[in-house]
Amino acid sequence: MFSVTVRDHIMIAHSFRGEVFGPAQKLHGATFVVDATFRRTELDDDGIVVDIGRATDELKAVLADLTYRNLDDEPAFAGQNTTTEVLCRTVADRLADRVHAGGLGAGARELAGITVTLHESHIAWASYERSL
Amino acid sequence: MFSVTVRDHIMIAHSFRGEVFGPAQKLHGATFVVDATFRRTELDDDGIVVDIGRATDELKAVLADLTYRNLDDEPAFAGQNTTTEVLCRTVADRLADRVHAGGLGAGARELAGITVTLHESHIAWASYERSL
Amino acid sequence: MFSVTVRDHIMIAHSFRGEVFGPAQKLHGATFVVDATFRRTELDDDGIVVDIGRATDELKAVLADLTYRNLDDEPAFAGQNTTTEVLCRTVADRLADRVHAGGLGAGARELAGITVTLHESHIAWASYERSL
Amino acid sequence: MFSVTVRDHIMIAHSFRGEVFGPAQKLHGATFVVDATFRRTELDDDGIVVDIGRATDELKAVLADLTYRNLDDEPAFAGQNTTTEVLCRTVADRLADRVHAGGLGAGARELAGITVTLHESHIAWASYERSL
Amino acid sequence: MFSVTVRDHIMIAHSFRGEVFGPAQKLHGATFVVDATFRRTELDDDGIVVDIGRATDELKAVLADLTYRNLDDEPAFAGQNTTTEVLCRTVADRLADRVHAGGLGAGARELAGITVTLHESHIAWASYERSL
Amino acid sequence: MFSVTVRDHIMIAHSFRGEVFGPAQKLHGATFVVDATFRRTELDDDGIVVDIGRATDELKAVLADLTYRNLDDEPAFAGQNTTTEVLCRTVADRLADRVHAGGLGAGARELAGITVTLHESHIAWASYERSL
Repeated sequence: MFSVTVRDHIMIAHSFRGEVFGPAQKLHGATFVVDATFRRTELDDDGIVVDIGRATDELKAVLADLTYRNLDDEPAFAGQNTTTEVLCRTVADRLADRVHAGGLGAGARELAGITVTLHESHIAWASYERSL
Repeated sequence: MFSVTVRDHIMIAHSFRGEVFGPAQKLHGATFVVDATFRRTELDDDGIVVDIGRATDELKAVLADLTYRNLDDEPAFAGQNTTTEVLCRTVADRLADRVHAGGLGAGARELAGITVTLHESHIAWASYERSL
Repeated sequence: MFSVTVRDHIMIAHSFRGEVFGPAQKLHGATFVVDATFRRTELDDDGIVVDIGRATDELKAVLADLTYRNLDDEPAFAGQNTTTEVLCRTVADRLADRVHAGGLGAGARELAGITVTLHESHIAWASYERSL
Repeated sequence: MFSVTVRDHIMIAHSFRGEVFGPAQKLHGATFVVDATFRRTELDDDGIVVDIGRATDELKAVLADLTYRNLDDEPAFAGQNTTTEVLCRTVADRLADRVHAGGLGAGARELAGITVTLHESHIAWASYERSL
Repeated sequence: MFSVTVRDHIMIAHSFRGEVFGPAQKLHGATFVVDATFRRTELDDDGIVVDIGRATDELKAVLADLTYRNLDDEPAFAGQNTTTEVLCRTVADRLADRVHAGGLGAGARELAGITVTLHESHIAWASYERSL
Repeated sequence: MFSVTVRDHIMIAHSFRGEVFGPAQKLHGATFVVDATFRRTELDDDGIVVDIGRATDELKAVLADLTYRNLDDEPAFAGQNTTTEVLCRTVADRLADRVHAGGLGAGARELAGITVTLHESHIAWASYERSL
C-alpha cells in the first residue's frame, strides 16, 4: 500500500457543550495543523498516488471553508460539537467528495482511502480514516 | 476509524543483557516521549473518542510509576530487558487495565484498541498496538 | 551565557482590528505553543539556571490566566490587538513579575533576561526578548 | 503488533517526466528524511523487534547507494520517475532483500513487514508498506 | 526586541567545488526548509512586527526565483558554491531589498534586522543574520 | 553573522544532589538531543562556516565520551550535578578544545563562537553560548 500526505492548517474559534469538556465549554480557539493522507494500492503510470501539488490545492480549498471563523456560527455544525475528531471526519468527507467529483484527476478514482489528522497542540491530535 | 493521541514523557535509567545491545549493556538512560493513541469505530454522543484531558491524566498516572527511576531495580521488570518495545507494551497494557477499570469513563468501554509509541531519540522509536 | 527553556500551550479565541489583518479581522482562534526561555550569565550552586520543574509551574500559572477564553473579552487587552507579538510580551512581562516576586526562588534574582516565543502554526511564530 | 522505526536521510537531484509535475519537470533536488519501520507480531528473546543499531546500519547501507547523486543517471531508475512514492518502494524492497539475506540477523526472519516513509519537506511525505 | 518568523521551502539541485565537500562535489540536491525572521525594537500601531501574511508572500516571492532548478546553471551564483550558508545570505539580502522597496509596507522600514535559517535535513541547518 | 548547526544525541544515566531537584535526586536518565552551533563573521573561501560533515564528526567524537554511561561514575563530573546546563557547557568547551587543536581544519580558527543546546524532552531544553 502506498500513501501521500500533505499538510496545511486552520485557525478557528469554537466552544463545546457537555460537562466532560470542562473549561473548553467556554468560547476558545485552536490552530489545527491538518495532515491529509491519500492511500492507493498501486501507483499510476506517472509513479504517484496523487500529485502532491494538486493534493495540496484540494486540501487548501476544503480548509478555506473552515478557517478564520467561529465554528459555533457555522450552519454545517449546528447541533454538534466541533471536536478535533468531528473536524477530522468533516475534512476527510469533503476531500472524498472532491475526489469523487474529479478534483484530483481521473486517476484519483483509484484511491483506496483517506486519513485526516488534526494536531491541536504539540501534545494532542486526532485522526479519522475512511475508505473511498 | 477514529483515534485520539496524547503525549507525555518519562526519564529513566536502565541497562540491557545480551550481546546484541553492545554499549547499551552498561547502565545508561533515556527520555522516552510517549504517545498513547486510543481508537474507536464511532464517536460517542459528545463527538469524541475519549476526552483528551482525561486521556492525558490517565497516561500521566501510568507514567508516574515508571519515571525518575532505575528500571533495573523495578520488580515488575525482573528478568526481562526494558527495551523500548517492552516499555511500549507495558504502558499500553496498563492503560488498557485503566480503561477496563473505568478510568476513562463508561464510554471508553467502546474503545477498539490502544497504540503506544515511545520515541527514544530524534532518530529512533518503537510502537505496540493492541485491541481492547 | 546559559539558558533554560520550557514549553506549554494555550487555546484562545480572538479577532483583530485593522485592514492589514484581512480575514483575521473575524472572530477566529489559535493554539499558541509557548516557549519561555530564562537566561543567566553564570549557573547557581546547584548547577542550574532555574529549576525546570519550577519554571514549568510558573509558566503554567501565567498561561492559566489566558487559556480557554475569548481574549476580545479580557479587560487586560482592551483597546489593543492580541497579536502573537503582543501575547509574547504579555507572557514575558508576567513571568518577569513572578521572578521579581520570588516565584522562581531567591536564586532566580540573578536571571539576566527572558525570551518568550509563541508558535501559532507549523509555519509562523513570534518572539519577545527582555532583560530582567 | 510491535514495530521499530529508525531515521536517516538522502540528498539527491532528479527531474520528472509528465505534465502533472509542472515545474518539477526541470532538474531540481530534494532532501528525503527516511523513516524505516520494521513490524513483528511477537518480540524475540532479547525483547526487541530488531536491534536499533543494526537496523540503523542496514538503512544507512541502502541509502548509501542513493544519496549524493543525480537519480536521472542511475540505471536502476531508467524509464521511470523517481517520485517520493517510487523511492519509498525502492528503499523498502532493498531493506527486504537485506532482511532475507540475513543482514538484520537470524531473528529478523520473523519480521512481518516493512514500511518506509520519505519526508520531502515539512508539508509533504509519502509511504510504502509491504509484507516480508 | 520583537521578532516574527515565517517558514517555506525550496527544492533544488546543485554541486560543490572543493575537496572539503567530499561526495557533495557530485550533482545532488536538497530540500531547504527556510525560516525568515524579521526583528524590530517596538511594535507598530497594529501591534505587529510585520503582517505574517505579507511576510509569507514576500518570502514566497524570493523563493520562487530559487526553487525547482539546478543552481549550478544560475548566473547569480556563477563562480561560487551555493552552500547552505551562501543561500541563507542570498535569501536574507533579497528580503532586505524587498523591505527597502516597500514590499512589506511603509511600517517595515522600522525593521531592525533579518535572520534566515535554511534546514538542509533533520540534523543540519545554517543561518545568516543581518541588520536592515 | 553566519552559523552552522549539527545535531546528534546521547543516552545517559545520572542523579542530582539538592532538594530543588525533587524526584530527580534518584538515579534516572535522559536522552539529550544535542545541537552544536558554530558561528563566524565571514564565510571562508569555500563559502562555508565549517564543513557540516566535519562538524558532525567532531560532535560525535565529543559525545562518544559521554553516551551510554552513568555520569555519576565519571571522574570529570565528580562533585557537581550533571544538569542539562552543565552538560551544555561541557560539550561546548570540549568542542572549543577540538577547534583550537585543529580538529575542524585551519579555517575553523576564524570561528567566533559556539552554542550548544541539549533537549531533554519535547518540553524542556537548555543552552550554553561561548566565544572562541
